[in-house]
Amino acid sequence: MSEPFDVVDLIHRKRDGGVLETAELQWLVSRFTTGYVANEQMAALAMAIFLQGMERREIYDLTQAMIASGERMDFSSLSRPTTDKHSTGGVGDKITLPLMPLVASFGAAVPQLSGRGLGHTGGTLDKLESIPGWRAELSNEEMLQQLEEVGGVICAAGAGLAPADKKLYALRDITGTVEAIPLIASSIMSKKIAEGTGALVLDVKFGTGAFMREEAKARELARTMVDLGKDAGVKMSALLTNMNTPLGKTIGNANEVRESVEVLAGGGPEDVVELTCALATEMLALAGITDVDVREHLRGGQAMDVWRRSIEAQGGDPDAAMPTPKFSHEVRAERDGVLVRQDALAFGQSAWRLGAGRARPGAPVVHAAGIDLAVKPGDAVRAGDLLWTLHADDASKFERALEALDGGWEIGDEAPQTQPLILDRIS
Amino acid sequence: MSEPFDVVDLIHRKRDGGVLETAELQWLVSRFTTGYVANEQMAALAMAIFLQGMERREIYDLTQAMIASGERMDFSSLSRPTTDKHSTGGVGDKITLPLMPLVASFGAAVPQLSGRGLGHTGGTLDKLESIPGWRAELSNEEMLQQLEEVGGVICAAGAGLAPADKKLYALRDITGTVEAIPLIASSIMSKKIAEGTGALVLDVKFGTGAFMREEAKARELARTMVDLGKDAGVKMSALLTNMNTPLGKTIGNANEVRESVEVLAGGGPEDVVELTCALATEMLALAGITDVDVREHLRGGQAMDVWRRSIEAQGGDPDAAMPTPKFSHEVRAERDGVLVRQDALAFGQSAWRLGAGRARPGAPVVHAAGIDLAVKPGDAVRAGDLLWTLHADDASKFERALEALDGGWEIGDEAPQTQPLILDRIS
Repeated sequence: MSEPFDVVDLIHRKRDGGVLETAELQWLVSRFTTGYVANEQMAALAMAIFLQGMERREIYDLTQAMIASGERMDFSSLSRPTTDKHSTGGVGDKITLPLMPLVASFGAAVPQLSGRGLGHTGGTLDKLESIPGWRAELSNEEMLQQLEEVGGVICAAGAGLAPADKKLYALRDITGTVEAIPLIASSIMSKKIAEGTGALVLDVKFGTGAFMREEAKARELARTMVDLGKDAGVKMSALLTNMNTPLGKTIGNANEVRESVEVLAGGGPEDVVELTCALATEMLALAGITDVDVREHLRGGQAMDVWRRSIEAQGGDPDAAMPTPKFSHEVRAERDGVLVRQDALAFGQSAWRLGAGRARPGAPVVHAAGIDLAVKPGDAVRAGDLLWTLHADDASKFERALEALDGGWEIGDEAPQTQPLILDRIS
Repeated sequence: MSEPFDVVDLIHRKRDGGVLETAELQWLVSRFTTGYVANEQMAALAMAIFLQGMERREIYDLTQAMIASGERMDFSSLSRPTTDKHSTGGVGDKITLPLMPLVASFGAAVPQLSGRGLGHTGGTLDKLESIPGWRAELSNEEMLQQLEEVGGVICAAGAGLAPADKKLYALRDITGTVEAIPLIASSIMSKKIAEGTGALVLDVKFGTGAFMREEAKARELARTMVDLGKDAGVKMSALLTNMNTPLGKTIGNANEVRESVEVLAGGGPEDVVELTCALATEMLALAGITDVDVREHLRGGQAMDVWRRSIEAQGGDPDAAMPTPKFSHEVRAERDGVLVRQDALAFGQSAWRLGAGRARPGAPVVHAAGIDLAVKPGDAVRAGDLLWTLHADDASKFERALEALDGGWEIGDEAPQTQPLILDRIS
């Protein structure tokens, strides 16, 4: 009964626009983890933080308190410099798959601790599990060994990193407080800092298919996270990127792996190549590796070599046939014209309804389900041309998947204004 | 699984400054009562309501939804018009005790469903339980019979009125969302409307000893509740009253009953008499009884008659000796001067520490504990004069009770500016 703070006093302070001190935030997070601070109280505080905000120092303290709730990893024994990337998530966002091998091929160590998808944005682990034999769960020793020997690893984040964040995220999810920038920033960064990377590049997306619809909000989130990482001694930069249109020409799991391998072979859609190379250049620069043309290692096969070795190290066969869909449905143009819009949210939800994503945590995904895009905005089409193909393991899925696409695309007469994929760089 | 609304959608709407519809509020309250809407979710929504507010129609709908969660009472069989009073609570606020008999003595029926105290403001039932034999719990039939035969009753509100409010209030208490005006207004008014009174006068207090510190907030609360009652067909008015100084010269339980009896006998402190008479005049006017000088029934003994009959009807002996304190401690002036300040919060907390109030729901109160004030602000004192006497059943209580008074009063050289007790009338 000799607690140093009263939780209702702290809620009142934030509610009324005040500031919480370092020791108060440490106490709140540690007592929330043990259950002394009740879920109801943390829910009210999260809403107060959403509406009243937090100062840079408060966000830093909150993040450090979440890190302190769990274990920290240590990459200091590696001979290579570590550099990592985090994306806020988007539709068709398979960038991690070609990016990790590309950056590792230049001598950096790339620890990509990833998650599974929920809702309309897919999960990197779900995509890679399309590869027969590949396993996401590694011990810390296996991870370190692979980082040293292969240079990169994409694997599941252990439950030991920032457990307070896990508990808080589950609460935010049911209480309408997910979109609070201080809480998003501390959630993402607590895991990345606990993971122990020396450098981190953020891909902060805005647009219909992104977590943040508005560019201004995405910019604020990017700025907040860059400041937070720097305050914790991590070398940071962020790219602000457009997510109004799906990335590349595949949305799903197995088809996104296939497209990633095309990029690693020197081909693939230009938007995926552009973003992969831009992020790789950022990650290498933060790791002290400058004056390199990253595209050379896509054309020259060095990135592909790392890819194959990393897949094999995790039990996968890079040459194995991947799952194929039982049913496919083609959508064709009804008129001549040009594709003026291909909305990321509509296509992401459609792929989700086809079975590529999961409805609730722990549910399985269908690896062969998804959408292949034959055309992208700006492409000219003639009546009867193939626009995109939907894939599913159950033909009854097509009706609701097509409904999700309704109003999400448009064939017009004039080419749309092109939007830059990479809007800004923040550091 | 076929719920018409998604609770997270509704939280998002209020969080972003939107408006909740009638059917949505009905659904929220009914599902909160059954537990489908979780405490965490209601806590986040309560904080969003605190910070974003509610429109008049939303507050009305919320109140009606809370009423619908329980039973309603019906006073329509009474031959007298019903008129009721609610005070937002203050230090030394014993007004209900002389007020009920005074109003009933003019032919109105006064159903005062009251509560017990928590924290530094006392509860009307706690005070009356100082009277040997008196009981607070009555059946609905007993209450109706007493209203018809005696004209007034002060008793415990049944648990059946607005149970959703009870659950929400307990949640607000631990989540820092008590002070939200839409939630205070709907909490108070749901019980008063469910109780079935035809008229209601509000005593909305502001100042250090009140729930609302600021006059502007108290005014907003009064306006909100008057509108809400009118929308529900209740005749309404409100007095905005000062609670920077304790009411009367007693703070406690048995001593407040004694002071109330003095008022009923035509004496007592002028501030208690003034507020009692002002509220009585309002209550009678709303019940259609005008052109009366209420002080006549204090001087003439008619109010005292009703008091005695009502105490007896509830098993009490109006002539019995009341509990006396085991220990008393006098505080005397150290200098000549005039009392310039006597802070309601400090004196309320001091009386609470003496045992007059309870620390947690269900704990007992000490009926003889409290403070008797020998002087009030503006009174001249000489060094050595008695200022006030503290009473307790345990001499160890005095130390912390005196600490609570530290800085809460001041003897100066010039008389303080007098503050009006009744600042405004809102109808």
